[in-house]
Amino acid sequence: MVTARDVGEAVTRTRAAVHETPLVTCRAIDELAGATLFFKCENFQRVGAFKIRGAMNAALSPGENDRAKGLATHSSGNHAQAVALAARSLGVPAHIVMPRTSPAVKVKAVEGYGALITFCEPTQADREATLERVVHDTGAAFIHPYDDERVIAGQGTVAWEFISQLEERGVRLDALVGPVGGGGLMSGTAIAANHRSPGTRLFAAEPCGADDASRSFHSGRREVNDAVDTLADGLRTNLSDRTFAILSRHLEDVLTVDDAQIVGAMRLIYERAKLVVEPSAATALAAVLANRDRFARQRVGVILSGGNVDLEAFFTSLEGMR
Amino acid sequence: MVTARDVGEAVTRTRAAVHETPLVTCRAIDELAGATLFFKCENFQRVGAFKIRGAMNAALSPGENDRAKGLATHSSGNHAQAVALAARSLGVPAHIVMPRTSPAVKVKAVEGYGALITFCEPTQADREATLERVVHDTGAAFIHPYDDERVIAGQGTVAWEFISQLEERGVRLDALVGPVGGGGLMSGTAIAANHRSPGTRLFAAEPCGADDASRSFHSGRREVNDAVDTLADGLRTNLSDRTFAILSRHLEDVLTVDDAQIVGAMRLIYERAKLVVEPSAATALAAVLANRDRFARQRVGVILSGGNVDLEAFFTSLEGMR
Repeated sequence: MVTARDVGEAVTRTRAAVHETPLVTCRAIDELAGATLFFKCENFQRVGAFKIRGAMNAALSPGENDRAKGLATHSSGNHAQAVALAARSLGVPAHIVMPRTSPAVKVKAVEGYGALITFCEPTQADREATLERVVHDTGAAFIHPYDDERVIAGQGTVAWEFISQLEERGVRLDALVGPVGGGGLMSGTAIAANHRSPGTRLFAAEPCGADDASRSFHSGRREVNDAVDTLADGLRTNLSDRTFAILSRHLEDVLTVDDAQIVGAMRLIYERAKLVVEPSAATALAAVLANRDRFARQRVGVILSGGNVDLEAFFTSLEGMR
Repeated sequence: MVTARDVGEAVTRTRAAVHETPLVTCRAIDELAGATLFFKCENFQRVGAFKIRGAMNAALSPGENDRAKGLATHSSGNHAQAVALAARSLGVPAHIVMPRTSPAVKVKAVEGYGALITFCEPTQADREATLERVVHDTGAAFIHPYDDERVIAGQGTVAWEFISQLEERGVRLDALVGPVGGGGLMSGTAIAANHRSPGTRLFAAEPCGADDASRSFHSGRREVNDAVDTLADGLRTNLSDRTFAILSRHLEDVLTVDDAQIVGAMRLIYERAKLVVEPSAATALAAVLANRDRFARQRVGVILSGGNVDLEAFFTSLEGMR
């Protein structure tokens, strides 16, 4: 079981390897929300997302696996880059299994960290089978994107650091909101906040096109997504038994928002806070704005989980104006 | 003549009314530049750009004009919003003359600060004539966007604050680069840096489609743009005699870049530093990247002047994906 002590140790273990990301406020968004919001900017984190915290904590933790033979994972997203960078920091190989349909820009980013990529069919079954073969052939240690205690403890360092920064300003949060996909970030957040800031109400935010966490939370048993339909590509995964158990114990609620609300929140963050965030990161703000009554006049922490987004349309239009 | 003492007084005078903006670094961009860059993030400033500093310093300075009758200016850009917000802070009316061709989004932003807008024809002559009439009719005090000593001193607080933040980190800059349009920001920057960080080489960056500052600097007499052709809408204006005199005395050089280089730098700032900046703000980084030899292995300060940009194409494409 992951404990607050594990998160505290992860803070110490990963300190030299991750950024302390800034806390940002935005008067214009506060006015719209009718609350005082504090944004934790993991879009400024290494690899552009909080994922490096969990990957680095797993890579640096003592364990039975022989890390000298490298690190492995399957992912087409931020976790792939995180494991690739963690391996490079350790000076060992990274073996990343990616669906052959992954966007070229993501493949290039992972290659940019020196990882070895094995392509698979874009199915969960082939991802897992391919990963198993890679791990068997190479002896690399598998780091799961969220169903791993070391990863959960690592992601918990976001909230741990956030609460420390708020304490320096004399602020205690009434509520803390972050996005939920597989549940690694929110599990770590819940464990850290429960210990460091008891009384702060905890909310997860989820796209309604991938609402397994909301349905699970309300039914009391783990549900899965039959199909997913959301722009928020980081939030399409299902909870695991492990993350569901943690979240069902600690959360006050799981709030769902649709993609129009997510894009609306993303636009606010760009236009008013001047931050580049990905749709998954905007989901938490969207949930706050869609539930004004629940957060009115409160101090609310909002985790901006990452900033890796394809801005091609914008830059193409700018280049067309030349 | 504007002195370092005027800038220091502007720091004190405007402290409660403007944000201390963060200093950001980005490893990935440093690798591309072959130098260590420090970004001063005026995109996070109130109204989204440094312009509030000059407007607020002018509005709060003792002077012969009767501010009780309001503040006035002509501008379709960030200075319009800055004067509107400065007037609102003082509790007096703002009278803004804007070309009737101004984008609706800019008109709305100025109205959002409670300003009274008078539309004019989109010519310099009609802007000035309309402003003169408004000032005559209302008795409001005119705040010029850059040809004003109080405005120049106010813009100098960017570099003053930047240098203080760098001192706290034990960093002395080898070079400091900012964008130049009318020259208010770079004049204030030169006066502040010359006093606070003597020995730091000062560079202005300018689009080659509006290169009056570069031509003036190299010919030794003030030149003007016959026509302008650049995406960097904040940098289309000419130097005044006042700003030319300051810049010709203090700058090491004026570096020009084309719009492709500006968009390329903007893309880097979005994709790697996760910051929303406007084309004018990216111009300084573009100049550093286009002149690698002159900045190689140095500590270089880069002023990101603002973040007000039309992201419509990007959000339209996202909304189309729903």
